[in-house]
Amino acid sequence: MDLIRVIEQKKLGNALSKEEITAFARAAADPATPDYQLAALLMAIRLNGMDARETADLTLAMARTGDMMAPDVGGLPVDKHSTGGVGDTTTLVLVPLVAACGAKVIKMSGRGLGHTGGTVDKMESIPGMRTELPEEEIVSIVRRIGCCVAAQSGELAPADKRLYALRDVTATVDSIPLIASSIMSKKLATGAQGIVLDIKVGDGALMKTLEDALQLGDAMVDIGCKAGRRVTALVTGMEEPLGSHVGNALEVGEAIDVLAGRVQGPLLDVSLLLGEQMLLLAGLAQDAQAARGLLLEALHSGKGLAKLKEMIEAQSGDGAVTQDTGLLPRAAHRIAVKADKNGYLHEVDATRVGLIAQSLGAGRLRKEDVIDPAVGLVLLKRIGDPVREGDLLAQVHTNHPDRGEQAAQALLQALHIGEGSVPKAKQLYAVIAKDRREVV
Amino acid sequence: MDLIRVIEQKKLGNALSKEEITAFARAAADPATPDYQLAALLMAIRLNGMDARETADLTLAMARTGDMMAPDVGGLPVDKHSTGGVGDTTTLVLVPLVAACGAKVIKMSGRGLGHTGGTVDKMESIPGMRTELPEEEIVSIVRRIGCCVAAQSGELAPADKRLYALRDVTATVDSIPLIASSIMSKKLATGAQGIVLDIKVGDGALMKTLEDALQLGDAMVDIGCKAGRRVTALVTGMEEPLGSHVGNALEVGEAIDVLAGRVQGPLLDVSLLLGEQMLLLAGLAQDAQAARGLLLEALHSGKGLAKLKEMIEAQSGDGAVTQDTGLLPRAAHRIAVKADKNGYLHEVDATRVGLIAQSLGAGRLRKEDVIDPAVGLVLLKRIGDPVREGDLLAQVHTNHPDRGEQAAQALLQALHIGEGSVPKAKQLYAVIAKDRREVV
Repeated sequence: MDLIRVIEQKKLGNALSKEEITAFARAAADPATPDYQLAALLMAIRLNGMDARETADLTLAMARTGDMMAPDVGGLPVDKHSTGGVGDTTTLVLVPLVAACGAKVIKMSGRGLGHTGGTVDKMESIPGMRTELPEEEIVSIVRRIGCCVAAQSGELAPADKRLYALRDVTATVDSIPLIASSIMSKKLATGAQGIVLDIKVGDGALMKTLEDALQLGDAMVDIGCKAGRRVTALVTGMEEPLGSHVGNALEVGEAIDVLAGRVQGPLLDVSLLLGEQMLLLAGLAQDAQAARGLLLEALHSGKGLAKLKEMIEAQSGDGAVTQDTGLLPRAAHRIAVKADKNGYLHEVDATRVGLIAQSLGAGRLRKEDVIDPAVGLVLLKRIGDPVREGDLLAQVHTNHPDRGEQAAQALLQALHIGEGSVPKAKQLYAVIAKDRREVV
Repeated sequence: MDLIRVIEQKKLGNALSKEEITAFARAAADPATPDYQLAALLMAIRLNGMDARETADLTLAMARTGDMMAPDVGGLPVDKHSTGGVGDTTTLVLVPLVAACGAKVIKMSGRGLGHTGGTVDKMESIPGMRTELPEEEIVSIVRRIGCCVAAQSGELAPADKRLYALRDVTATVDSIPLIASSIMSKKLATGAQGIVLDIKVGDGALMKTLEDALQLGDAMVDIGCKAGRRVTALVTGMEEPLGSHVGNALEVGEAIDVLAGRVQGPLLDVSLLLGEQMLLLAGLAQDAQAARGLLLEALHSGKGLAKLKEMIEAQSGDGAVTQDTGLLPRAAHRIAVKADKNGYLHEVDATRVGLIAQSLGAGRLRKEDVIDPAVGLVLLKRIGDPVREGDLLAQVHTNHPDRGEQAAQALLQALHIGEGSVPKAKQLYAVIAKDRREVV
């Protein structure tokens, strides 16, 4: 089928047939297809939309352009995906916890680009850690210990890989059908049977409004159900960074602190919420309360932390970091950011915080940039906290004092102190499953 | 300026600033700009539109990406442009006629692509004819004899050249702001001070409805006025081919027959309407009636035909064709198409007629195809004519009897004979100038 006829249909605002969608996905996976035709079609989809049936068809068609894993991991494989946030290290907290409860987790992750970090980059800050693993090794690790966090392989959904890259440079990222089909095509290809989605909402997230987040959740749950997978989506807040640490080794350290029971707060709270859903989908608990009981038992007994150590060592990393976070890379300089007035922390510009961490070297501006695992920043106040002039608000970790000073200046601008008390930021906004949608 | 920010603006439905439009035009002329970004922006413009100010800014910005001719031709240079029709040879009739009345015409033409023919291809069916002329030679010919029909140079509006080619392969041809700015950018670049536009409307034209044709006319007249040029647009009918001949040498022959006074009909009628406007814009007549008087005098005295001969010879062609059309290339075979019932000719599928001529070799399917100047077809009935079974409806001129037979079969399907008389097809639908818009 001629791709130009498919573009024509979408341009006119018509729904694409299954055949047209399949032609589109195959064309995207075919290097002979010119980028400009794909770009025109992406913009037509961004502006004229796609209905639920088209979106589900596109997802499956993209998944089928590459390998379709059907891994035998000795149990029902469950997976979790976040739409991306700042200081969002839930993967490193919940994957060991749910695996310690008996779940089988194949977690394929991406690298960071833009203001949000990537789990693969975080993992690689652990000395010796390998994330580029062949499929057989991933499956064998999961069979043996229950979990593995690996880098997305290029063989999975190659159509998505190309379209994802093109969207970034053609201003067509912000399309709910395209976001939903991109995420879900990879999840379908990895063979996950239970999929928990963490849809971030707020100024620091791709979805800025609850309405958009709910729409995206509906679309992804619908796709999963149409493909015969169990899917639950949580909408969670991204008004401020989730954890207090932003930066690769810093976030790994914080996840270890949470698993060791030294740190509580929103990062643990959201990890437990997501973990509950994973255990439910895996059929390892009857209800959320029972699931939470299992997770807390794994946390308090230290089984979660032990599972993280096992997983790090299975991937050739130095498991000793789980006992001593001082073994993680550390930046040479720390610069204090202090409050310049009294009041309450009213707002944190999470996107800006992510960009500041990126500017320190924690993230990439271009795909080929090399990141510095040690740098980043630590926030010491959360929204709603009272602040007195001179209080330590944050610390910048840097290997370049000049860049660090700039970052500290910028960080002070990103933390808005106002008069009068304000409530803490909300974590859970909604739960979406096949037959229910609860807005909290 | 970053092109992606321009795409973003148009995607959101915002009007682009003059700076954004200029950045777009410059990016289009810059080979380093990736096609996919231009394609995404073209689709965003197709779907979200551009207002009159944006369209005028784009036109001028595209014109300025290349040479801006300011030819000294010894008078006010006037030009005419048709949006493209089937059997539309007005250029070869009216250019010599208005030049014989004293006008100075630099006519830059394109080659045919798709179902409509190109004037340059038609001209090149005349033995020896050169159309690829350097600017100085074009200007010198016009100074000396008053007219020259040459191929569009690649140095004019290179941004438009690239966008035009991209639109063809990204389903973004049918955008009034893009069509208007494409046509007018080239006219502004050639330095035409008076511009007459022939906007074809009907099934055989790009504009299918009068409403669209009027919108396009308004847009182009507005652009011209904003750029300080005199512009008049006529909306004329393309319900059936304009002339009775379709094919390169066949159309040249028909134009010569019209100038020799041997043939009347819609081709002459529309040429006179357009010619009147050219003389008015050139300031060579006070009103339409006076202009028509001058044109008819040039026709009846033979001065128009003599001017065509002069022009052909100035461009190294064999001027003797104007006395003997038998010197033009002729196809080896003629196949008759006869009526299979009694009635009246109700409809002619002009697009299909164009495609049939193309299939015979008169047009190109791909840019690199070589055309056969001799082939084509001649229609012997017009809409409204009574028809009796066995009457000769058309003749196919071919060098391949097999292709010719197929073409004859297809042609019979494109000529719809029905019961009951129907009126003749209308020629003039509207006149649009700076301060008036008359729908006839």
